[in-house]
Amino acid sequence: MLAFEISEYKNRLTSVKRSMQEENVEVLLITDPANMNYISGYDAMSYYVPQCVIVANELEEPVIIVRLQDHYSADQTCWMKKENLIPYPDKYLWEPKVLHVMDFVSDFIKEKKLDTKRIGLEMDAYYFTAHWHVKLQNALPNANFTDATKLVNWVRGPKSTKELEYMNIAARTVEKTMYNAIEKIRPGVRENYVAAGVMHDQIMGPGVFGGDFTSLPPVMPAGDRTAAAHFSWTTEGKYKNNQLVYMELAGCYKRYHAPLTRTIYIGEPPEVVRKTTEVCIEGLNKALDFIKPGVTCEEVERVWQSSINKHGIEKESRMGYTVGLSYPPVWAEDTAYFKPGEKTVLKPNMTFHIMPGVWLEGYGVAITETIRITETGCETITKFPRKLFIND
Amino acid sequence: MLAFEISEYKNRLTSVKRSMQEENVEVLLITDPANMNYISGYDAMSYYVPQCVIVANELEEPVIIVRLQDHYSADQTCWMKKENLIPYPDKYLWEPKVLHVMDFVSDFIKEKKLDTKRIGLEMDAYYFTAHWHVKLQNALPNANFTDATKLVNWVRGPKSTKELEYMNIAARTVEKTMYNAIEKIRPGVRENYVAAGVMHDQIMGPGVFGGDFTSLPPVMPAGDRTAAAHFSWTTEGKYKNNQLVYMELAGCYKRYHAPLTRTIYIGEPPEVVRKTTEVCIEGLNKALDFIKPGVTCEEVERVWQSSINKHGIEKESRMGYTVGLSYPPVWAEDTAYFKPGEKTVLKPNMTFHIMPGVWLEGYGVAITETIRITETGCETITKFPRKLFIND
Repeated sequence: MLAFEISEYKNRLTSVKRSMQEENVEVLLITDPANMNYISGYDAMSYYVPQCVIVANELEEPVIIVRLQDHYSADQTCWMKKENLIPYPDKYLWEPKVLHVMDFVSDFIKEKKLDTKRIGLEMDAYYFTAHWHVKLQNALPNANFTDATKLVNWVRGPKSTKELEYMNIAARTVEKTMYNAIEKIRPGVRENYVAAGVMHDQIMGPGVFGGDFTSLPPVMPAGDRTAAAHFSWTTEGKYKNNQLVYMELAGCYKRYHAPLTRTIYIGEPPEVVRKTTEVCIEGLNKALDFIKPGVTCEEVERVWQSSINKHGIEKESRMGYTVGLSYPPVWAEDTAYFKPGEKTVLKPNMTFHIMPGVWLEGYGVAITETIRITETGCETITKFPRKLFIND
Repeated sequence: MLAFEISEYKNRLTSVKRSMQEENVEVLLITDPANMNYISGYDAMSYYVPQCVIVANELEEPVIIVRLQDHYSADQTCWMKKENLIPYPDKYLWEPKVLHVMDFVSDFIKEKKLDTKRIGLEMDAYYFTAHWHVKLQNALPNANFTDATKLVNWVRGPKSTKELEYMNIAARTVEKTMYNAIEKIRPGVRENYVAAGVMHDQIMGPGVFGGDFTSLPPVMPAGDRTAAAHFSWTTEGKYKNNQLVYMELAGCYKRYHAPLTRTIYIGEPPEVVRKTTEVCIEGLNKALDFIKPGVTCEEVERVWQSSINKHGIEKESRMGYTVGLSYPPVWAEDTAYFKPGEKTVLKPNMTFHIMPGVWLEGYGVAITETIRITETGCETITKFPRKLFIND
């Protein structure tokens, strides 16, 4: 059931250890579920309880610590030897102020004589709460803690052939899903009916391959609600004539995501919507033409920004982010962004969700793509007509 | 678009302020998305960026601080005056080590002269990371911080008439979803096909009402994988003869959940599976008969435990938890549990997911219900045959 060859996991481990050395981290406590998966293969919906992977030079392999209930999941999805899959009993969950999973983790670290090391913590990773941190500080008074929040995230940037294969499957899923959804959006059709189809198609996948659940549910506001960037459907509302619909969806395969956004107008679009969409697409195309290895993220944003500025539109927001492996609550990799001041240099096989969107008073328009940096430029992983869809 | 009358939100606020007084908390910083929703009504998929609600006696109403992009969502879903919906610009997200949303929040707290107060933090809430905590500590050196992790969660315990109405709609959804899924589980049918139907039915809802996405995706392992508690479907696997299938699903309406678990056997079940299911159901029924206001959670667990012990089965796990309003990653309220040592006394209108399950070597069986504590006992909110489903 491994999603990748063991050699690929070992390569990842080598890269993470190299980063640890560069950052002067001797022991790395990985709690971000995507980072845990990247290093160990671990894949289960148990990320709502404390769990972690520990990497250290003193440990031959990564060690995963999970809840006893999830030990079998580790056994099925991790590449390491059984002795490196360590279950904790439920009593560590029951009174977290008294006895916490981080106490169990600390005992392990002490047992391995790693408790005086420089220990990297993912201080700002989802699920690594302030309380876990306090517990670790109390249990390991001799440790030298350091912030290693995105250390593994950065290693995840350039994708392997297999990872790209998974993202391509995810892209086929989102294309099919988007196509079917757009077909259904007509006046009088209930929003939740279209949303139900979206979630159905996401899991059906492209056909031979199936689909996994996405880290963020479908974003698909209609009408006035498109002025908000993060609304889903309404449970009883119906699409109406002269409404804008904004759909940000993803496909997911083996937890690798390919997001895609399109804007649909029901009826005859007002000139301002047509125009805004054109401005969006023009800016996107210019950015795509510009992107290649060696340019920086802020340069990409500047190309987009100056393209839309010419039309009198300004946008203070990130217009793209790295994307790939993820768990809820979101599919971003949280490393490089297309934004002012971002000096990250693009490298081949980095993957982004390039997300030019314009939210104006009362409506929002966005046309986005999942892209891969190639040796000489970039290509879209998602293939879908880049236009305003008009359903009349 | 408010999900509840303003009077209901005001009652909640009164209850939270009473708890704050009891716990000696002068300012409460609410970051758990379900708690934010409970107090303010706020509902959007923006919980992957920092955001919060602040409650204090010095503030007439709760104040919500959200990303600028999500200001419109706050405007559409919150009951408070516009001046209490405060957007922060994206620059607070871009370099979180340098400038963080918690700096913006701290500035607000200082501006309102609340920075020397006793400030309650949800130290162990999902999304409240160690880094946010460090930022707050640095920005508010004169504050007296205290842990208020589950203060609002506990207030959420007893449900109002309207909340129960939503949970009942969610229950109708999960019943329909479970029924349709069980019908489809046959040898040769792909697991992701059934999963796609599940997600479709969850969003279609019971009919007149639609459905919202659930905080945890469907848990539905088959065969050997039922030995793991938190596996979803496989993307290409097919159901086989002589397989056990374990399905833990929920319906969701206005973010209120009703979970339900059933176990299905494809083919003629081995005696041990039949027997384990019977033991499970017997223990569940005994617990349901026992539950009434005034008894403690540990007493409920003891009834279950002694029922299964008679059959030589022991289980070290929580066999139920409070349930209702939630956001990803999970639908538990995280307050009272049916577990040893839990002294919480049951009160009318508390709602639980009672979850008797037995995971043995190689397979897992569970039959669960969403229940409401009534004035004299309890009733199941979910209505579904309590048996081992046999698909031959």
